[in-house]
Amino acid sequence: MTRDELIKQIYSKKTFLCVGLDPDTEKIPKHLMEEEFPIYEFNKSIIDATAEQCVAYKPNSAFYEAYGLNGLTALEKTIRYIKTNYPKHFVIDDAKRGDIGNTSAMYAKSSFKRLNADAITVAPYMGRDSVKPFLQFEDKWAIVLGLTSNEGSADFQHLNVDGQELYLKVIETCASWGTKNNMMFVVGATQAAMFAKIRKIIPDHFLLVPGVGAQGGDLQEVCKHGLNKNIGLLINSSRGIIYASSAEDFAEKAGEEALKIATQMKSYF
Amino acid sequence: MTRDELIKQIYSKKTFLCVGLDPDTEKIPKHLMEEEFPIYEFNKSIIDATAEQCVAYKPNSAFYEAYGLNGLTALEKTIRYIKTNYPKHFVIDDAKRGDIGNTSAMYAKSSFKRLNADAITVAPYMGRDSVKPFLQFEDKWAIVLGLTSNEGSADFQHLNVDGQELYLKVIETCASWGTKNNMMFVVGATQAAMFAKIRKIIPDHFLLVPGVGAQGGDLQEVCKHGLNKNIGLLINSSRGIIYASSAEDFAEKAGEEALKIATQMKSYF
Repeated sequence: MTRDELIKQIYSKKTFLCVGLDPDTEKIPKHLMEEEFPIYEFNKSIIDATAEQCVAYKPNSAFYEAYGLNGLTALEKTIRYIKTNYPKHFVIDDAKRGDIGNTSAMYAKSSFKRLNADAITVAPYMGRDSVKPFLQFEDKWAIVLGLTSNEGSADFQHLNVDGQELYLKVIETCASWGTKNNMMFVVGATQAAMFAKIRKIIPDHFLLVPGVGAQGGDLQEVCKHGLNKNIGLLINSSRGIIYASSAEDFAEKAGEEALKIATQMKSYF
Repeated sequence: MTRDELIKQIYSKKTFLCVGLDPDTEKIPKHLMEEEFPIYEFNKSIIDATAEQCVAYKPNSAFYEAYGLNGLTALEKTIRYIKTNYPKHFVIDDAKRGDIGNTSAMYAKSSFKRLNADAITVAPYMGRDSVKPFLQFEDKWAIVLGLTSNEGSADFQHLNVDGQELYLKVIETCASWGTKNNMMFVVGATQAAMFAKIRKIIPDHFLLVPGVGAQGGDLQEVCKHGLNKNIGLLINSSRGIIYASSAEDFAEKAGEEALKIATQMKSYF
């Protein structure tokens, strides 16, 4: 998907919500566990209930890999379901991949060609040849970890590197390998105060913002510091939406949670 | 597998070679492509031909994921084959995973419980809660990226952090989260001169050393600076061994290449 297509979709629906699909069989409603692919059935219902309120879905690869071939089949089927029924939605394979060049090329092939995701999240530690293979596919995106939303982000990302925090150096350096048309950055919602510094370096790039909701990030703060002239944010919520209820009304409640966030977002258009 | 078991195996066989299983269907012998699981058949032959010369196998997850469910089945079958026929060999799931805590826990479960690997490679950028979930499994290991063997390693790993290079800070910090019994570090063979600095910080930990052979690393240099009193190295070679021949004699030639390295290693006992 191109940047223009993504922006057009955001403006036409007046939302920049991304719904994270992190299916945990210990949390999904019991009645679905009788299905052959319970995770897929869960996702389908969540997708149908939230599609109007969001522009992107972000399946978290770990939550499928943990269930082996059944889980991975559910991931393939989920992305196919989105691409068939909601072809304008942006699909992010949240896999945090990154390795030496020939191996990153294999991960890119797996995510973009086999799964047909629009984007994959990428870990930057191994440097240029670990990131660039993800930039070689037309209309596909690498979303590089910049500043993450978790407690451990302080261990390395805030280290002082020649007068600059490491996460800023990472964002600045990685941004030079791609463009605003094939690269985004992960910036955690729990770090709202840092958005201003990041926007000085990359005013035009999209940021994927996890951590709103369950992890404590604040939508209003993120928007205040992170929005740019094309919106430029994809704000993700996973657990707060998909586990809004564990009963048979789970999809309806998920839709209601998504609508709450999408409604808040409308004021920024 | 415990550290003592690994060390015992190394001393009894007088080798510390790890064979990297990076199967690429464009490189594996044509006659295998008629099999239902060509990658698995390839691996089985390579394993049988090299088991005497090595103490560990390192399947590279990307090279299985790229072939979808067939590839992932081949990965499961390969590890099962090793664990059944060569139960004393150490198996490393080279997957470079790492995410927020609850997601890393899912990756750990996938690697240790589903695949039954002894170890997984882990990317450190997201900090403590991305690494610690891999340390919660008895006799299982996290192998954290310290200093990698690729060109891009210079982009971030050598940055100056308060007078110390980032990779040293990463190794020092991560080492404090685990012990020499559940944590190793990746240190590329192309960086032999840095081994002395690393050994000052972690004299006792095992290092997983990729990059010997195809990537240009030198075994003798690595041993000179990296060996410790328990050997403390697992030296990996992938392409140099498994693609020594693309004809029907591929396994025999792989065995010969492994024997060459193992023979060099004998002089260090």
